Amino acid sequence: MTKATRGSLRHDPDGRDHADGGCDVFIPSAIWFGRVGTAPTGRSPRVSDTPESIDKLIGLMARLPGLGPRSARRAVLHLVKKRGQLLAPLAEAMQEVADTARECINCGNVGTSEICSICASEKRATGELCVVEDVADLWAMERTRAFKGRYHVLGGTLSALDAIGPDELRIPRLLDRLGAEQITEVILALNATVDGQTTAHYLADAMEDRGVAVTSLAQGVPIGGELDYLDDGTIGAALRARRALG
Amino acid sequence: MTKATRGSLRHDPDGRDHADGGCDVFIPSAIWFGRVGTAPTGRSPRVSDTPESIDKLIGLMARLPGLGPRSARRAVLHLVKKRGQLLAPLAEAMQEVADTARECINCGNVGTSEICSICASEKRATGELCVVEDVADLWAMERTRAFKGRYHVLGGTLSALDAIGPDELRIPRLLDRLGAEQITEVILALNATVDGQTTAHYLADAMEDRGVAVTSLAQGVPIGGELDYLDDGTIGAALRARRALG
Repeated sequence: MTKATRGSLRHDPDGRDHADGGCDVFIPSAIWFGRVGTAPTGRSPRVSDTPESIDKLIGLMARLPGLGPRSARRAVLHLVKKRGQLLAPLAEAMQEVADTARECINCGNVGTSEICSICASEKRATGELCVVEDVADLWAMERTRAFKGRYHVLGGTLSALDAIGPDELRIPRLLDRLGAEQITEVILALNATVDGQTTAHYLADAMEDRGVAVTSLAQGVPIGGELDYLDDGTIGAALRARRALG
Repeated sequence: MTKATRGSLRHDPDGRDHADGGCDVFIPSAIWFGRVGTAPTGRSPRVSDTPESIDKLIGLMARLPGLGPRSARRAVLHLVKKRGQLLAPLAEAMQEVADTARECINCGNVGTSEICSICASEKRATGELCVVEDVADLWAMERTRAFKGRYHVLGGTLSALDAIGPDELRIPRLLDRLGAEQITEVILALNATVDGQTTAHYLADAMEDRGVAVTSLAQGVPIGGELDYLDDGTIGAALRARRALG
């Protein structure tokens, strides 16, 4: 790709690859098809002579987050070239996960049995319960190795616009667990977004008279952060929550 | 991720996602691990309580072009959440491609039989043969619907540094096909890179006395291109290859 098609390869913060069909921005399809002597059809171009099974695989891969039609095509071509080393093991690994993966009925974590390994471990019964929105957040917490208790995955945040109330999330189960597992502290590790904080306030209210301490993650300057690049809200929150040194 | 960790989400022209481990640029691991009360281990953090099958799937997915460990994790989590609609069909589609996909023994295209559909089609026996580096280039040519003949996939370019000579590519087979398929014109659709053009010159020399016309794709201003953003070499080539209007 030359410099002339600037802008056709761009990358959004959500990680989705926008290279796909980028040329359409610059080339009206009528002109493009006109140049190659074919009448404009309105259909998007596809590889007519690719075997159907490969086309189907490209279509499915393109539905993964972070992959579009073009990057899915590149990934599938790579897979086809490395059939033995990569494609066959990947197909097997996917089949195994498809057959065995399931959600823990207690906390909502992903595992291979009814109760996930964290809920099953007596060592994790510290009386601390960390509430997260999503399994990805649970994994992020686990990577820090900073938390030794158990988790509860809500499966989303309260949202009036999307009609998601407490019963759509795993909130009733959370309240049940407080007594059943002798929880003493609930740590709300929800995202610092409007929806996340709304949910945190709702949960704090709901657990007010349950005899548990309800805490939330500290807000402040991230490690490695530079003040000059931080938003005003974060600097303000960090200032209000300032702490004595030593 | 806040603005403070600027630069940790960046995107290279090759499409590989560099978000993974981006924090390491700013946070020496000793400091990071120190803050969470664990001795520095030198190992990269992993999710210790993820089932082994999911860890394995993440590892395999991370080997796809365009995906790193972090985006592979996101993709796998998405797959696990959509086990029924996406993961199971994807596993099946991969298994099918792994079982059936193979290279055409004639041209090197990817298909499901010994001879690909293009080589098998009598309609494509126009006497024109388009030489490309890679199957991806063949697919790109097919998407334009501009070429009605057959293809020959070299499988790379000549490269003295990588010790890739004519016998490592599909060049002997190309020369055999000239007579066997009554080829009248060979169109070299190789990338406009140094290696691609070196290979083109070699092929033009090798086919000099074979009674076929050897042509190459035109070089010039891409459709939608702006002169101001084009490199000098392209503008010079476009000027030298200028054509009369009307």
